[in-house]
Amino acid sequence: MTAASPAENTAPSPDMLAAIDMGSNSFHMVVARLVHGEIRTVEKMGEKVQLGAGLDPYNRLTEEAQQRALECLSRFAQRLQGMPAEGVQIVGTNALRVARNAPEFIARAEEVLGYPVEIIAGREEARLIYLGVSHTLADDEGKRLVIDIGGGSTEFIIGQRFEPQELESLHMGCVSFRNRYFPDGKITRRQMDKAITHAEQELLNIRQHYRSVGWQSAVGSSGSIKAICSVLANLKITDGTLTRDAMEELRKRLVDMGRVEKLADLGVRQDRQSIFPAGFAILLAAFRSLDIQAMTFADGALREGLLYDIVGRIQHEDVRERTIAALQERYHVDQAHGAAVEQTAIAAWQQVADQWGLHTSADEDVLRWACRLHEIGLTISHSQYHKHGAYLLRYSDLPGFTQQFQKDLATLVRGHRRKFSSTVFEGIEPEDKPRLRYLCVLLRLAVLIQHPRNLEQPPEFVLHGHENKLVVEFPEGWLDNRPLTLADLENERDYLSKQDFTLEIGTR
Amino acid sequence: MTAASPAENTAPSPDMLAAIDMGSNSFHMVVARLVHGEIRTVEKMGEKVQLGAGLDPYNRLTEEAQQRALECLSRFAQRLQGMPAEGVQIVGTNALRVARNAPEFIARAEEVLGYPVEIIAGREEARLIYLGVSHTLADDEGKRLVIDIGGGSTEFIIGQRFEPQELESLHMGCVSFRNRYFPDGKITRRQMDKAITHAEQELLNIRQHYRSVGWQSAVGSSGSIKAICSVLANLKITDGTLTRDAMEELRKRLVDMGRVEKLADLGVRQDRQSIFPAGFAILLAAFRSLDIQAMTFADGALREGLLYDIVGRIQHEDVRERTIAALQERYHVDQAHGAAVEQTAIAAWQQVADQWGLHTSADEDVLRWACRLHEIGLTISHSQYHKHGAYLLRYSDLPGFTQQFQKDLATLVRGHRRKFSSTVFEGIEPEDKPRLRYLCVLLRLAVLIQHPRNLEQPPEFVLHGHENKLVVEFPEGWLDNRPLTLADLENERDYLSKQDFTLEIGTR
Repeated sequence: MTAASPAENTAPSPDMLAAIDMGSNSFHMVVARLVHGEIRTVEKMGEKVQLGAGLDPYNRLTEEAQQRALECLSRFAQRLQGMPAEGVQIVGTNALRVARNAPEFIARAEEVLGYPVEIIAGREEARLIYLGVSHTLADDEGKRLVIDIGGGSTEFIIGQRFEPQELESLHMGCVSFRNRYFPDGKITRRQMDKAITHAEQELLNIRQHYRSVGWQSAVGSSGSIKAICSVLANLKITDGTLTRDAMEELRKRLVDMGRVEKLADLGVRQDRQSIFPAGFAILLAAFRSLDIQAMTFADGALREGLLYDIVGRIQHEDVRERTIAALQERYHVDQAHGAAVEQTAIAAWQQVADQWGLHTSADEDVLRWACRLHEIGLTISHSQYHKHGAYLLRYSDLPGFTQQFQKDLATLVRGHRRKFSSTVFEGIEPEDKPRLRYLCVLLRLAVLIQHPRNLEQPPEFVLHGHENKLVVEFPEGWLDNRPLTLADLENERDYLSKQDFTLEIGTR
Repeated sequence: MTAASPAENTAPSPDMLAAIDMGSNSFHMVVARLVHGEIRTVEKMGEKVQLGAGLDPYNRLTEEAQQRALECLSRFAQRLQGMPAEGVQIVGTNALRVARNAPEFIARAEEVLGYPVEIIAGREEARLIYLGVSHTLADDEGKRLVIDIGGGSTEFIIGQRFEPQELESLHMGCVSFRNRYFPDGKITRRQMDKAITHAEQELLNIRQHYRSVGWQSAVGSSGSIKAICSVLANLKITDGTLTRDAMEELRKRLVDMGRVEKLADLGVRQDRQSIFPAGFAILLAAFRSLDIQAMTFADGALREGLLYDIVGRIQHEDVRERTIAALQERYHVDQAHGAAVEQTAIAAWQQVADQWGLHTSADEDVLRWACRLHEIGLTISHSQYHKHGAYLLRYSDLPGFTQQFQKDLATLVRGHRRKFSSTVFEGIEPEDKPRLRYLCVLLRLAVLIQHPRNLEQPPEFVLHGHENKLVVEFPEGWLDNRPLTLADLENERDYLSKQDFTLEIGTR
């Protein structure tokens, strides 16, 4: 908060934002644009500065480490030039918390950057990490444990939706542990055990309290955890998810390897190899101490949290509903038609949900949202718009949604018209296929019934669901003066029969 | 783009123009003279090539159909000889949109013609038809509905004066419907009703919206509609104008006739007899669905639209500029940054255009527009946004653009960052690859120089282009306090060298 502050900038709400996180291991910058209150990332940059490794025995940053850091910052600075100060947040974490000559370094950094630099406390770091991570996760109700392993500290947060409840920052990190336990690149059993024990000791501070608060899901962020996931996948120990057993197995394998350079074969980048065993030891200690059975990786981190913090983040009522509504607006979707299709689809779903085993709220949600968004691809072109819609839903950043959910949503939209072929369900896990096929049949039926777009009350149809078969009964005479709906139904029967699905049309 | 392109022609405004429309049913050529900015038709030629009927079950043009087409084109080519390339536009429509071996055929067609051939999207076809029709009509104020029945698609446009408002191309035409409903020349009531119902189903896509937009007058173009007018006159049902009642009456008469050969007595040329009932069914469906009471015939069509389009470009009323601006708006592209990148890229292009043989206006255009739109994919996600941008540019309906041009534009955007790998240029014809590679290098350089986004005046760099090599010289000392740019340039050198392209960085 001082120094070479860039010009007097009075713009009340900047539309360009930037955050820099000067971590103990890496420096990261993210630049984003604020569009209709939503954050859209424009650029990410990162460099492995290893500031924490540049602390001498008296906890002073060496001149060499400072130079490394300042050179990196000078590159960031060229990109920041001219941005309003209100839109920029630059923070330092553990290495700067402990460096006795931090004030001197910060003055130099501000000189180079032209913006103020702040050192944040461990708990504030934890709060911001939770803010960043929670915005990239599905917006569900359960409590979450979030762990982020930094170069000099590791953050542990328990929170629910966007609210952190417990915030802790422990004084152990992958750079400091590397220096202490794996300084020469050797991985021995003895050193690994020492590192794990040290971390478990640190965890004693929070262990009992955290376990009593509890959580429903565990999430890891940070480059260290990401690297562990990818090593587990490359070794085919798991598909990349973290489990307690897999972690114990990896401990043995690391000791067998004996040297960090061997990690290159498993896809670990050279600049991350030396800190890998240290980060691993900390995570395994957390699994043991907190009795974690499984954990997933999430992409958000401190720097994203800084951005959400700048924006002061809006209401968080139901993030997914808001995301869907924003998509409808942004791509000019016909909302009345989407609502009509949704009403018809849900009426159908209620009749067969039990027969087809589609009773979870996730089944209902994905069907509802597919109805609202099925025409989204029209924004690109009428030709093949079901494919364009699927592309948009698969690859867009959709706050509150998981990748898996986006894939399901995209699959339904992809399959809502034309051929009901097996390519529609490509890339879907075999066990999810029947579920999605049934949901897709319901979506198609609703789209078909609402095809005339006259928004008339849909008919009181009666459905019976059997295995790979749907019987639809319309009121006596209803189809007689609706030749187009009849033709559509006959086409649909052909489409479905080609995929061994029977559609039986009758009256009641 | 390219092929046997006729010499470098630099004449700014040719006084002879020609347009060829390779339709699914007929090929047409019109030659005109430009006199004081006015188009005077000099010659019209047309042949019933029935390209659409020459698609085999796998949507490949048979060799026989290709031969028919090439023979027709060879006759047109003799008439075109010596005309400046800027005055000639040759397009293919639906049959070539769907033909899987279209690239092969187009290469042969370009060989025969000596001019580039482009495939246009359905909405672009609709825009051009409206342009052609509106120039043959009285310039009044009311809104018009224009319908053009082609061999493989039917276009529906609502516009006012020279501006189209609604553009749609539906996937039904007189050749495809003939094959499906009247393959043997028999006209039965049952088949006629089926064809009409099918067309009405297609029309459901636009029916409600078009009726809500409304129009004051309805106009039909195309040979199918012209033939219907003349049959109505010959049967003395009307004086040749189309009314709803007359159309219903003609339906009965056609069914009574029972066979297409009987149309000969009513003045229908032999080569049009077999497709007559199909075109009629589509038009009657339009009358019913859109509740049209009366319609007049107008002579202008796609080929006239092409001529007006050429003239419009010469007079710098480039509809493509408007399309680009609309895209920037719609997807919230940072326009100031796009303009800065464009300025830098064009400054670079001017220095090496001759050395690299990039001197056509199409080269300049695609580079300019790629600069303005290179960040368009950010609207979907920051991750892989160059790929999302390429997707949007490849598949969106972009008025004024050909599919080939969209492909080139998409390729440049795809290649503007990250790896410069050969996958970027997948699907590009081998002879176009070097050109696009060079343009892509220029785009990348401009993006790199403007990376800091401070909108400062770009440096006075000097470029030398050699085969697969670019030498960039910056003013002495300029790079010294621009560490980000220096790091970017070094990265870029690595990226390019992996694809056998040398980037040499120096000072002057």
